[in-house]
Amino acid sequence: MQLTPGRMLYLVDLAGTLLFAIEGASAAITGKLDLLGLMVLAFATALGGGIIRDVLLGATPPSALRDWRYPAIAFTGAAVVFFFHQFVLEAPAQLIMVLDAAGLALFAISGTEKALLREMSPLVAVLLGGITGVGGGTIRDVLLTKVPGVLHADVYATAALAGSAIMILCRRIGMTDAQSAFAGGIVCFTLRVVSVWRHWNLPVAA
Amino acid sequence: MQLTPGRMLYLVDLAGTLLFAIEGASAAITGKLDLLGLMVLAFATALGGGIIRDVLLGATPPSALRDWRYPAIAFTGAAVVFFFHQFVLEAPAQLIMVLDAAGLALFAISGTEKALLREMSPLVAVLLGGITGVGGGTIRDVLLTKVPGVLHADVYATAALAGSAIMILCRRIGMTDAQSAFAGGIVCFTLRVVSVWRHWNLPVAA
Amino acid sequence: MQLTPGRMLYLVDLAGTLLFAIEGASAAITGKLDLLGLMVLAFATALGGGIIRDVLLGATPPSALRDWRYPAIAFTGAAVVFFFHQFVLEAPAQLIMVLDAAGLALFAISGTEKALLREMSPLVAVLLGGITGVGGGTIRDVLLTKVPGVLHADVYATAALAGSAIMILCRRIGMTDAQSAFAGGIVCFTLRVVSVWRHWNLPVAA
Repeated sequence: MQLTPGRMLYLVDLAGTLLFAIEGASAAITGKLDLLGLMVLAFATALGGGIIRDVLLGATPPSALRDWRYPAIAFTGAAVVFFFHQFVLEAPAQLIMVLDAAGLALFAISGTEKALLREMSPLVAVLLGGITGVGGGTIRDVLLTKVPGVLHADVYATAALAGSAIMILCRRIGMTDAQSAFAGGIVCFTLRVVSVWRHWNLPVAA
Repeated sequence: MQLTPGRMLYLVDLAGTLLFAIEGASAAITGKLDLLGLMVLAFATALGGGIIRDVLLGATPPSALRDWRYPAIAFTGAAVVFFFHQFVLEAPAQLIMVLDAAGLALFAISGTEKALLREMSPLVAVLLGGITGVGGGTIRDVLLTKVPGVLHADVYATAALAGSAIMILCRRIGMTDAQSAFAGGIVCFTLRVVSVWRHWNLPVAA
Repeated sequence: MQLTPGRMLYLVDLAGTLLFAIEGASAAITGKLDLLGLMVLAFATALGGGIIRDVLLGATPPSALRDWRYPAIAFTGAAVVFFFHQFVLEAPAQLIMVLDAAGLALFAISGTEKALLREMSPLVAVLLGGITGVGGGTIRDVLLTKVPGVLHADVYATAALAGSAIMILCRRIGMTDAQSAFAGGIVCFTLRVVSVWRHWNLPVAA
């Protein structure tokens, strides 16, 4: 069993799904949900963005439901949090943040890729990259009746949109698909991490 | 006009829709919504789960919109509550609970059936059975800005998932489709009713 | 470049999108969202109703994503509010209300038209007209964790539903498609404006 690029990307994608599921399940514990609520939030946070993207593209059933490994991984994340939450909730916030930024970059890039494959315009491909990255967290917040965090704080969705835009730009100037994806991912990841480190926020109309 | 099994199933399905619509409309009265809000909540509670399932399966337009009888029945439920809410709201809670458990079982089984017809994996078919059963109530709670009840209390979605899983298991061990559906429905209904009677709840991570 | 009826309708549609985007972005300012939240609310308010309609009809990708001008116009509305909100927020409420009623009428009519084109039943076509008109505002309210306004106050969704119903009725009695659309739009607009002027509300079950 060789580790081809395609196979590696798939493994990285599953890793991102696991991480987002753990974050979703952690939010369920803070919100005092029961075991089922914890599983739903893990699932929705990890797979919600990709599901919205696929429904909008008409690529149904969404890949998150076509391949049973995705829900299985999401529920594994839920189980990890349920049984080991004392450790998970005490993980260093900076570690979580850096891993999350990597997951965000991966989801944004894969979302943009899929939108371009389906011949969406550049503007729409950027939007779908952003939705893939932040859609799951938005559903999680709505289910917890909180105004989604992406709407009022941090440079988060913005990092996803910037990464997607850079990826498309790189393709336009003749870079290969792999190089473009890599460049976009790096921009998203870096912008997210630096913005947390420097306490950047988007402007608010006063 | 004979009462074939297919026709009976259809009538039972309409009965479940009517009941869920009545419950949705009752929540609208508690939430002080106007007549339109009451109609929207009846529609969303009764048909929301099946609509989400069909959109995820790519079976659009959803059957709830292809057959005008479904919205018509939902609005009939809304009208019943609007004009006779003093009686509806005073119905014995236990009667409502038992009828609701029957509706839940029916929706879970029909959702699993449709997912299997579209060749979803067993895990995903169970999830879609659960979504068909509880999706409508979840939308209702989100519209009322409440954390969805299924996420933090009762053995409700769990009963739907268990019934769906049993149904698939029965098919695997060679029972007919009808027997499997019946077994799954009985498990869902019984688990739901017994859990209310015995005050069962799912564990919460402390 | 001639101003054909089709082209004029398209321009009017873009105008409605711009207006709804401005209203969505204004709600974002009241809710203290940042620039990204403002863009999301402009997009969701202006295009959400049509996106839900197209997803339900199976007409994916939705027209709001197939034609890049729609998101571009929505973000233009967001930019207008971000940079000139002191003027926008001080616009006379009655002017906004009249323009909004025009947008509502347009969206309801175009939604009904598209549903009839896809051979939905009259009842479902009326529902989809209503969803096209009020779906965006409903998403906006949910994201701000408010009970959607259409569910408890004003004659708003009702006006959209009435306009859609009249449009279908006019077709049935032999009027041309253009006449029917015009009659439905006028009914929706007038009912909305008169209901605000006369302080009409729907009944609430006491």
